[in-house]
Amino acid sequence: MNAPDSTLLARQQLYRDMDPHHLTPLWDVLHALVPPKPATPCVPAHWEYARVRPFLLRAGEAITAAEAVRRVLILENPGLRGQSAVTQSLYAGLQLILPGEVAPSHRHTQSALRFIVEGSGAYTAVDGERTTMRPGDFIITPSWTWHDHGHEAQGPVVWLDGLDIPMVRFFDAGFAENGSSASQAVSKPEGGSYARFGHNMAPVRHEAPFGATSPIFSYPYDRTLEALARLERDAPIDPWDGVKLRYVNPLTGGWPMPTMATFMQKLPAGFQGKGWRQTDGAVYSVVEGSGVAEIEAGDQHWRFELSPRDHFVVPSWHTARLNSEAGCVLFSYSDRPVHQALALHKEERLP
Amino acid sequence: MNAPDSTLLARQQLYRDMDPHHLTPLWDVLHALVPPKPATPCVPAHWEYARVRPFLLRAGEAITAAEAVRRVLILENPGLRGQSAVTQSLYAGLQLILPGEVAPSHRHTQSALRFIVEGSGAYTAVDGERTTMRPGDFIITPSWTWHDHGHEAQGPVVWLDGLDIPMVRFFDAGFAENGSSASQAVSKPEGGSYARFGHNMAPVRHEAPFGATSPIFSYPYDRTLEALARLERDAPIDPWDGVKLRYVNPLTGGWPMPTMATFMQKLPAGFQGKGWRQTDGAVYSVVEGSGVAEIEAGDQHWRFELSPRDHFVVPSWHTARLNSEAGCVLFSYSDRPVHQALALHKEERLP
Amino acid sequence: MNAPDSTLLARQQLYRDMDPHHLTPLWDVLHALVPPKPATPCVPAHWEYARVRPFLLRAGEAITAAEAVRRVLILENPGLRGQSAVTQSLYAGLQLILPGEVAPSHRHTQSALRFIVEGSGAYTAVDGERTTMRPGDFIITPSWTWHDHGHEAQGPVVWLDGLDIPMVRFFDAGFAENGSSASQAVSKPEGGSYARFGHNMAPVRHEAPFGATSPIFSYPYDRTLEALARLERDAPIDPWDGVKLRYVNPLTGGWPMPTMATFMQKLPAGFQGKGWRQTDGAVYSVVEGSGVAEIEAGDQHWRFELSPRDHFVVPSWHTARLNSEAGCVLFSYSDRPVHQALALHKEERLP
Amino acid sequence: MNAPDSTLLARQQLYRDMDPHHLTPLWDVLHALVPPKPATPCVPAHWEYARVRPFLLRAGEAITAAEAVRRVLILENPGLRGQSAVTQSLYAGLQLILPGEVAPSHRHTQSALRFIVEGSGAYTAVDGERTTMRPGDFIITPSWTWHDHGHEAQGPVVWLDGLDIPMVRFFDAGFAENGSSASQAVSKPEGGSYARFGHNMAPVRHEAPFGATSPIFSYPYDRTLEALARLERDAPIDPWDGVKLRYVNPLTGGWPMPTMATFMQKLPAGFQGKGWRQTDGAVYSVVEGSGVAEIEAGDQHWRFELSPRDHFVVPSWHTARLNSEAGCVLFSYSDRPVHQALALHKEERLP
Repeated sequence: MNAPDSTLLARQQLYRDMDPHHLTPLWDVLHALVPPKPATPCVPAHWEYARVRPFLLRAGEAITAAEAVRRVLILENPGLRGQSAVTQSLYAGLQLILPGEVAPSHRHTQSALRFIVEGSGAYTAVDGERTTMRPGDFIITPSWTWHDHGHEAQGPVVWLDGLDIPMVRFFDAGFAENGSSASQAVSKPEGGSYARFGHNMAPVRHEAPFGATSPIFSYPYDRTLEALARLERDAPIDPWDGVKLRYVNPLTGGWPMPTMATFMQKLPAGFQGKGWRQTDGAVYSVVEGSGVAEIEAGDQHWRFELSPRDHFVVPSWHTARLNSEAGCVLFSYSDRPVHQALALHKEERLP
Repeated sequence: MNAPDSTLLARQQLYRDMDPHHLTPLWDVLHALVPPKPATPCVPAHWEYARVRPFLLRAGEAITAAEAVRRVLILENPGLRGQSAVTQSLYAGLQLILPGEVAPSHRHTQSALRFIVEGSGAYTAVDGERTTMRPGDFIITPSWTWHDHGHEAQGPVVWLDGLDIPMVRFFDAGFAENGSSASQAVSKPEGGSYARFGHNMAPVRHEAPFGATSPIFSYPYDRTLEALARLERDAPIDPWDGVKLRYVNPLTGGWPMPTMATFMQKLPAGFQGKGWRQTDGAVYSVVEGSGVAEIEAGDQHWRFELSPRDHFVVPSWHTARLNSEAGCVLFSYSDRPVHQALALHKEERLP
Repeated sequence: MNAPDSTLLARQQLYRDMDPHHLTPLWDVLHALVPPKPATPCVPAHWEYARVRPFLLRAGEAITAAEAVRRVLILENPGLRGQSAVTQSLYAGLQLILPGEVAPSHRHTQSALRFIVEGSGAYTAVDGERTTMRPGDFIITPSWTWHDHGHEAQGPVVWLDGLDIPMVRFFDAGFAENGSSASQAVSKPEGGSYARFGHNMAPVRHEAPFGATSPIFSYPYDRTLEALARLERDAPIDPWDGVKLRYVNPLTGGWPMPTMATFMQKLPAGFQGKGWRQTDGAVYSVVEGSGVAEIEAGDQHWRFELSPRDHFVVPSWHTARLNSEAGCVLFSYSDRPVHQALALHKEERLP
Repeated sequence: MNAPDSTLLARQQLYRDMDPHHLTPLWDVLHALVPPKPATPCVPAHWEYARVRPFLLRAGEAITAAEAVRRVLILENPGLRGQSAVTQSLYAGLQLILPGEVAPSHRHTQSALRFIVEGSGAYTAVDGERTTMRPGDFIITPSWTWHDHGHEAQGPVVWLDGLDIPMVRFFDAGFAENGSSASQAVSKPEGGSYARFGHNMAPVRHEAPFGATSPIFSYPYDRTLEALARLERDAPIDPWDGVKLRYVNPLTGGWPMPTMATFMQKLPAGFQGKGWRQTDGAVYSVVEGSGVAEIEAGDQHWRFELSPRDHFVVPSWHTARLNSEAGCVLFSYSDRPVHQALALHKEERLP
C-alpha cells in the first residue's frame, strides 16, 4: 500500500525545505546504503599484455621517466573510469623504465608494491638501499620512505605498481614530498635488509625499521618458486587455490604491508579449480604459464584466457574459478588486511 | 621547459588510442593522486539543533517509523552532497522515534553507534537484550547483530546515529538482512551485558560475545560524567582537549568498535583551547553547555557557536580550537581505529 | 633384562669420575624430570580462620608493624615447609595492622595483591594515592611501585597478601628498595585511578600507568557483588564453577597482573559442583557463607569445611569439587597468566 | 635498639605454637624473600669440551641409546647440584648418539632445543618429518610433539639439549608419554616445514602447526652464517654484543619457543666487548673460533678461555664481557621470553 498523494507531497516539501540545511531523508536511500550483499561498481577486467605492451613502448617514446616522474599506465577499472582505481580501494599501474633513465626520488604516505613483469637490471632504491629487479620479484616501498627507480642495464623493464592510493585518499590521510635530488645517495649495500631479516633471524637491538611494514623489501622469485615447489610436493593441492602462499612480514607473521596482502600461487598442470568469492577484490599478474579465469556475478559471466604478464581483477563477492591445462603461476594482491582489521572480511568456498 | 607541440600531440593520440583498453597516463594525475597533504572534499559544517528539530518533527508527521524502517535525517556534508556521508568514511544522522512506534528488526555488517540527544524512555534491542535510552548515553549496535528500536514512554526521542556506512561501501563488504518480525523477542534482562562486563570483571568462560566489538553495548551518561568530574579534579587540564576520555572495549582496552572511536570531553568554564589537527575527521554532538568551535584550513575559517544538541564536523587535517565561557560537554566519534590499523594516523598539536 | 654387573660397575665409575666436572647422567633421573603428569610436592591445605586469628592477634602483641616492616603470618604449604610458599610459584600470607600503625614504604619487583579479610579503615598507598580497605575489596600493588600501609580507624584489620615471590626468586629477577620515610606523601585524591580507568573509559593521552598491570588498583567488593548477582540471575549456573568472574585489566582485557590471575565466584545455595583439575595451583579465601571443598589426587582425599575468612589451597592437577548448602562467595588467585604465556596451561572438567 | 628478652621469648613461643598450623613469621625472612637485587644460587661454570668428550665416549660404551632412552650427560650447575639444572629455570645436557642407534620416540610438555656440536648425519624426527643434523644447526622439538633421534651415518654425533625442564617442574605443568614404537613413521619429506614457512611466506590456510612454537624446526647453520656475515659487513659492530642475531618464529616475529630465546653471535677478530648484565641467565655453546668470557659478581671473578664446543653459563645479574683475538661464533639460549612475558626482564649495559 502506497502513501496517499498528500503525504507524498508533504514529504517532497520537507525534502526541499531541509535540503539547504544539508539534511536528507534516509528512508529513500536506506536499501542502497545497506544492501543485502556487496554491490560494487567495480567490474571484472582483463589487460592482455600483448595489447598493453605496445602502449607502454609508445609511452616510452612520448615522455621520459624524469618528466613523467613515474611513467605509468594506470589499469583503470571499466566501472571506475576517471578514478585511477582498479578496485574501489586499490590502484594498479604498469610502469616502464628504459636504460639510462631515473624516476626521481620522492616519498608519500601511500604504500607501494612492485611486481616485476618484464626485463631485468633496473633497480629501486629505498632508504639508501638499492634492490635489483628480476621478473617475479616482489618488492615493497614502505610508507613514507624515500624511493627512486633507475635502470643502468639493457632493454625495457616493466613492473606492476600496486598502491593503496584510493584508500589513503578516502581516509584523507595522504602526505607527499619530493626529494631534493633525482636519485638518493646509496648508503647501504644491496641485500642488507634481506640478510638481516630474511633468514628467520633478526638483529637483537634494531627492529622494525619500517614500522608496520616488512623489514624485507625484496622477496626474490627464486625463493618463492622453491617454496611453491616444496609445498606442491608435500601437501595436498587445495581444490580452490591450487598451491597458494602468502608473503609474510617476518617481524609479525602478518601481511607485508598494513594495507595490502600479497600472494603467489601455482595452478598445477590440469588444475580445475572450484569457485569461491571473498569481500576483498584482488588484482592478478600472470607470471608463467597459461590458464583461464572464470568469473560470475548474478547472471553475468566473464572468461579471461590468461597468458604471461596479463593482468586481471576479480571484484568483491564475484565468484571466481581458476583453471590451467599447462600449469600457471599467479601473483596477486588485495586489501584483505583492511577487511580483517575492520572485521569486515568474509569468504565463501563453493563446493 | 614545456614539451614541443609534436610531443603533446603524440601523447594525446596515445591517450585516445589506449583509452578503450582502460589505460590512462599516471603523469597527468600524479600530483592529485599523491597530494602533499590531505585534500579532502569534506568541509566543516554545523547543524544547529534549533534549526534541525522542526524538520525532525515534520518528518515525524510525514512518515511513520515502521514505513521508514529508520526515520532518520542524514547530516550530509556540504562537500559530499548525494553521498549520504558526513565525512568520506562516516555517516551521521538524527533518528526520531515517537511514543508507540517501532523501528523494525534488521541486521547488517555496518556497525552503529547511538548517542542519545533528546528525550527518554525509548529502547534499542540488541540480540535479545533491550537498553533504555537516556540523554548522554552511548549505545552500540555491533556488526551483524539483530536490532530494533521502540518507544513505550512519552515524548519524542532523538538520537545521533553514527555508522561506518561509507567505509563498508568503499570496501564492498556490506551484507544486510531483514528480521521476520518487527521487534525481536526479548530474551535477556536489561543491563545484563553491562553487569557481566562493565565492572572490570568478565565471566570466566563466555567472552567477546560480539567479536571485535565491545561486549558492553550501553555506556550510561551518569558514569561518564562521574569519570569526567574526577579526571577534571585529579589531573591537569589538557590545553588542547580540556578533559577528554575515550570509551574502551573492556575485553581489549581498545576502541569499542573496530571502525569507530568514541570520546567524551569536558571543556571547563573559561577554557580557551589550543589548536590541533588530525587525519581522522570527527563528528561532534554537544551534550551540555555552550562554546565555540573555530576551524581553519589554508585561508578559510569557520566559526560555530555551539548550543546543546548541536552537531558539527571537523574534517581531516583542518585546524580546530574549542573554547567555552560557561563550560561544555562534547561527545565525538571518528574513524581513528582505521587510521591506526592502517598506520595512517597523524596528529599535530599547535603550540 | 638388567645390565650385567660389569656394566653397572663401569657406569658407577663413570659417574664418580665425571661428578667433579659437574656432569651427571640423565638416564637415572629422566623419568622424574619428565613425569607422565604433574607430580607436585605441594599438598592441599586449609587454614581455618578461627585457628589462625589468635596467632595474628598474638603477633600483634609480639611485634609492631614498624619493626616487622610487614606483620604477616605466612601460609606455608605443608609440602613446602621452609620455602615461604603456598604453591611452588606463589606466596600467601595474612597481614595484620592495628590502629595507629604504619607498615613503612618500600618497593620491589614482586607484584602483590591484597584481599581484605577482616576490619575496615586501613589504607594502602600506591604511588601517592591511598585506598581505603573494606572487606571483600581486591587491591593491587603493581610491581616496582612505592607502597605503604596504615590504619587510622578502629579495630584490627587483616588482609590476605598474595605475591609472586617464589616465581621472581626462581627466575632470579627480584629487586627491592626501602623508602626514605615511613609513609609516602599523598599526592593524589583517593579513587582517582579508579575514576580514570574504572568506568570503561580511559584518558586519551595517559595510558597504562603501571605497564602490564591494571591501572585500577582497587576493585571494590560492592561492584563485584553486583556483577555476581546479575550474572547469577542472567546466565545458567556453571556446573563446575557456579558463578565465576575473573578480574580484568581494563586496558588489555587480560589479567590484572602479569603473574597472577584473580577470581571471585559465588556458589548458589544448594550448589553441588562437579570436579575439575587444572595445572595452575590456586589459593582461596572464603568471603561469605559456608561450603565444602573436596580434593583428590590418586587415592588421597581431603575434605575442608569452609567458614568465612578461611583459606585453602588446591595444588596443580588435583581434582577439586566445591559444594555449598547455604551459599558461599570465594575469592581465589593462581599463576594462570604464566601458564598461558608459556603455553603450559591445561584444564580438565570431569563429567 | 633490640627488643627486650621477654619480647623475644614471646615471639619464640608464638613461632613454636603456630608452626604445626603451617604458619611462619614473614619478618624473619622478609629481606631474603625480597632481596635488593637477584641473589641466585646459580654460579658461572665452564665445561671444556676436551674434558667432557671423553666422558661422552665412555657413556657411549656404558649404555646404549635405547637403554638410556636419551644418552645425555647433564651440565649441572655447581651451585645447583642434584637439581639437573644449569640455571634455576633451564636444563642443559650433551647428548651422544652412535651410528645405528635410535633414541626412542616419546613426547612431553617440555620444549627442547638441539644445537649440533659434533658430527653429522644423525637425524631428529618431529611429527613425522626427519631433519638431518649438521654442526651449527639449531633444531626445535616443540612441546608435546612426538620425537625420536637416530643415526644412520658415520661417527659419533653430539648435540646440546636445552630444555625448560626446571621451569615446567616449578609450575607443576608437565605431562609425558612414550611412543609405541622406537621410531615414529616418516610421513613427510625432509625440509617440508622449512620450505613452507622458512622463505618469508606461509601457506594461506594451514598456519601455526605447533601453536606458540615456530613452524620451522630446523634453522640451518649456513643461512645463519650468511646473515651474520652480512650484518657484520653492513652494520656497526655492537660494543657489547659484537654481531648478534636472535632466531625468530616467522609466524609471530617473536621467540621460536614460548619458554626459551635463542641467539647466534659473532665476535669479530680483535673484539673487546664491554660488560653487561641481565636478569635472564644464559647458556653458551662455542661454535667456532676462540675467545674469553669474563664474569663478575660482587668481588668474585671468573675467566673462561673458550675453545670450540665448550659450554658455559652466565647466571642472572652477573656482569659478563666477551673478548676474542681470533674471532668467535657463539650460540646461546636463555629464559628471556618468560622474563618478558612476566614483565621481569631487566638489562644493564655498562659504559
